[in-house]
Amino acid sequence: MTDADLTVRDIGEFGLIDRLSAALPPDVRTASDVHVGIGDDAAVWRPDAGEDVVITTDSLVEGIHFRLDWTDWESLGHKILAVNVSDLAAMGAAPKLAVLTLGLRGDELVRDLEALYRGLGDLARRSSMTLAGGDIVRSPHGLTFHVTALGQTRQQRTLMRSGAYSGDLIGVTGTIGASAAGLRLLALEDDDARRTAATADLLIAAHLRPEPRVALGEVLLERGATSAMDLSDGLAGDLPKILTASGVSAWIDERRLPVAAAVRALFPNEWRELALRGGEDYELLFTAPPRAWDAIASEASAIGGPVTAIGEILLRAGTASTLEIIDAQGARRPLLPGAFDHFGGA
Amino acid sequence: MTDADLTVRDIGEFGLIDRLSAALPPDVRTASDVHVGIGDDAAVWRPDAGEDVVITTDSLVEGIHFRLDWTDWESLGHKILAVNVSDLAAMGAAPKLAVLTLGLRGDELVRDLEALYRGLGDLARRSSMTLAGGDIVRSPHGLTFHVTALGQTRQQRTLMRSGAYSGDLIGVTGTIGASAAGLRLLALEDDDARRTAATADLLIAAHLRPEPRVALGEVLLERGATSAMDLSDGLAGDLPKILTASGVSAWIDERRLPVAAAVRALFPNEWRELALRGGEDYELLFTAPPRAWDAIASEASAIGGPVTAIGEILLRAGTASTLEIIDAQGARRPLLPGAFDHFGGA
Repeated sequence: MTDADLTVRDIGEFGLIDRLSAALPPDVRTASDVHVGIGDDAAVWRPDAGEDVVITTDSLVEGIHFRLDWTDWESLGHKILAVNVSDLAAMGAAPKLAVLTLGLRGDELVRDLEALYRGLGDLARRSSMTLAGGDIVRSPHGLTFHVTALGQTRQQRTLMRSGAYSGDLIGVTGTIGASAAGLRLLALEDDDARRTAATADLLIAAHLRPEPRVALGEVLLERGATSAMDLSDGLAGDLPKILTASGVSAWIDERRLPVAAAVRALFPNEWRELALRGGEDYELLFTAPPRAWDAIASEASAIGGPVTAIGEILLRAGTASTLEIIDAQGARRPLLPGAFDHFGGA
Repeated sequence: MTDADLTVRDIGEFGLIDRLSAALPPDVRTASDVHVGIGDDAAVWRPDAGEDVVITTDSLVEGIHFRLDWTDWESLGHKILAVNVSDLAAMGAAPKLAVLTLGLRGDELVRDLEALYRGLGDLARRSSMTLAGGDIVRSPHGLTFHVTALGQTRQQRTLMRSGAYSGDLIGVTGTIGASAAGLRLLALEDDDARRTAATADLLIAAHLRPEPRVALGEVLLERGATSAMDLSDGLAGDLPKILTASGVSAWIDERRLPVAAAVRALFPNEWRELALRGGEDYELLFTAPPRAWDAIASEASAIGGPVTAIGEILLRAGTASTLEIIDAQGARRPLLPGAFDHFGGA
């Protein structure tokens, strides 16, 4: 048996822990503020004095959130951590450490899991995070990954969903719809012309390797944004959560949606739906008063992350928040909320 | 359809979140030091000044860690949290908050999951913990539960595995082997005489509802224990981890093992194996210098948690830690390490 054929079952749980730990960059395995890392009953971390601790957890389940025939292992490792770091970014928090639970069948190749750890380790390193431990369990029916990520907030403040105020502008970072377009492309037959378009790989990468907006989250917090969340369920699913939490209504303008040219070109009839309901963009959706907008926009642009104003927060008329969209013809109509429900319920 | 028939699929992800949140005691849903709880992208918690943050994560997978025909839902909710709190106790940490990921098929009854939350909520309340959020994902092939628990350490100290020193006594809290005996009883046929013994339910409860030793962990930390861990893989699996981490060897005496009379009576030929390799006791295994022993024992006994000295830490002769056991006849022989490996590897 060569090293390339080695499976989890061949080296066992404890052998695997050693191999995976070795696949991480040294500064991701340990840090000066993490006193106890991988290997004890728990990790011990000392937050900076006066800082609050921010905690989030997110999971990826094989067949639901990813398919092994569509992703490479390194991208999968990246995404496991990215979806959690994105939640920290949406709070304006600085990422600090993560714990990971691997649910494995046992027949996985060790080298594939090492690639997974390289992808995770690379994002952790770039995000100044420590992988402080975790758990390996048997998951006979498919891979599951569970991450809990911890961060700390600057200046004892956080960006919440509940702070949007009438008159605020509604902004999004980057572009929306690319991840959903990438997912559509992955599902196409190999000989479909769109699959081989020059821009296809870019959209697929947006789906497989979303880049969490940590630096932009800090800009939003420091420059006076009133609320923020990350776009995981699509604009039509997520914006209503801010509206409800803040007790306000809103309008957005379809003509201002930042949708990449590649998405419009490859999906001329569907790009609106992809942008509004596609999900998994992991861009930040936020609100900010007009007086704060210019500072946010210029600082965001300076770090390479454009922001676009797409609408406005309104006073709520009744007891329910409403959301309207101005369409391409300038007509205003209600936008039906469209949060993705994993169980297809009411 | 009545409320008793309602499934997850009927009310959807967001309806379920509301129902489960309502099943928790109010002081488990919110706390003065948790500024953002269930419902935002992340939870925000302010540890007490000067305290370190302790983080642990542990999972239960259907068919691997539990069977629905062997447990009631309330006990299952208790155990999900208990196995994590036990890790905090082993560090001498005070439990503070937890986040929970539910992996659900969708056909679960809402009232069963409410019972699960009642069991979890009751232990959280007794442990002064907040359930600060989490995630619900679809898990088509069986239930999975993932908890990350956070605590804080008193006096900036923690109990680690690496502090055992030559001459220290080796102690365990409570009794060992009862959980494994309970698991054996659950697997018996209904008409097996042992299954209907008066003491059977007690042993089964030890398996289904282990009580984490939080107060004892604090006593160990404050009264000078040098190392500790919780017994999840059995004495023969876990003690070698302390020995290796501390660079020491040890002997234990089989005649001193605290094994409940019920375990000895129902399993006259197997009680040694159950005590040494049974696992899931969630008692604390620790080391302490002889001069600290009396204070630990009397304070432990005062809070209703007995401790028993079962052996002694020795200087390590070579480069590998060794563990010997003195048997019923007073003969000393090597005890083979027996950590349970989920993948049956080397």
